[in-house]
Amino acid sequence: MIGSGNCEKSGPNRWLRRVRFLGLPGFGRRDPFTAVNESDINLTAVRAELTAVSDRYEAALVANDVPALQELFWESPYVVRFGATENLYGTAEIEAFRRARPAAGLARTIIRREVVTFGTDTGAVSVEFERTAADGSRTRGRQSQFWRRFPEGWRVVSAHVSGMK
Amino acid sequence: MIGSGNCEKSGPNRWLRRVRFLGLPGFGRRDPFTAVNESDINLTAVRAELTAVSDRYEAALVANDVPALQELFWESPYVVRFGATENLYGTAEIEAFRRARPAAGLARTIIRREVVTFGTDTGAVSVEFERTAADGSRTRGRQSQFWRRFPEGWRVVSAHVSGMK
Repeated sequence: MIGSGNCEKSGPNRWLRRVRFLGLPGFGRRDPFTAVNESDINLTAVRAELTAVSDRYEAALVANDVPALQELFWESPYVVRFGATENLYGTAEIEAFRRARPAAGLARTIIRREVVTFGTDTGAVSVEFERTAADGSRTRGRQSQFWRRFPEGWRVVSAHVSGMK
Repeated sequence: MIGSGNCEKSGPNRWLRRVRFLGLPGFGRRDPFTAVNESDINLTAVRAELTAVSDRYEAALVANDVPALQELFWESPYVVRFGATENLYGTAEIEAFRRARPAAGLARTIIRREVVTFGTDTGAVSVEFERTAADGSRTRGRQSQFWRRFPEGWRVVSAHVSGMK
């Protein structure tokens, strides 16, 4: 055992208590009433990861790849998706919507996308998009997604899609 | 110095390296490619805090208390607010919108609100609301807010408000 023997009083148990109390710089401070640092915003590797996941989501949406879309949403009763015409709470409602959705007319062009990350496990993706209907008319919309990284990967925990008036 | 002298090899420096590598249970694991624990979801004190902040935001919105609304949005070029008729990027655009907004007709009734928190510094608030116009007609809307706790307190980092078709 590390730190056993005559070093016990200054060894790991004492250090573990000290570290738990003070928090560790670079780990974020996780006690309930201390905030994370602004320096955690848009860490290069984290932002690149979430951008790639967002690309994957967009491809799955346009292709109506329902298994991929379901995989990328958090599997939880707490997940929320507000769509243009529906308010969905929990995985069961979202999956039922995906399965029933017509595959046609999902193509869209991204006009603008903003990705911002916080620490190593949280991010927001904001998208403006345009759709062209069969008659050539164009409509604008917006999509907001709030992502978290879970042991199984990045997942949308809350999403809101709406048309632009 | 703690752990100095003949305990150096099993003392704090060695432990600090070990702790940084492994992460600490209960602190969340903060290295870039390891996710936080599901057990961090809806910690009672954190959820109660965010719920209270959401109450404060709702009161400020209905009263058109512009300073309070501005305070509760993250002051950053990365903050986003998609409204019913506007897409706003960064604090300057959001504050200009707040100042120009008519104070009338902001009253609304909350139909449903869901609050979910992740760890001690992240949460999502999803709201369905109803407004009654001067002629008595009712319209439904949805509001999604993504909150982070900063040193200055909880702030909305991304928001999306839309009417229901």
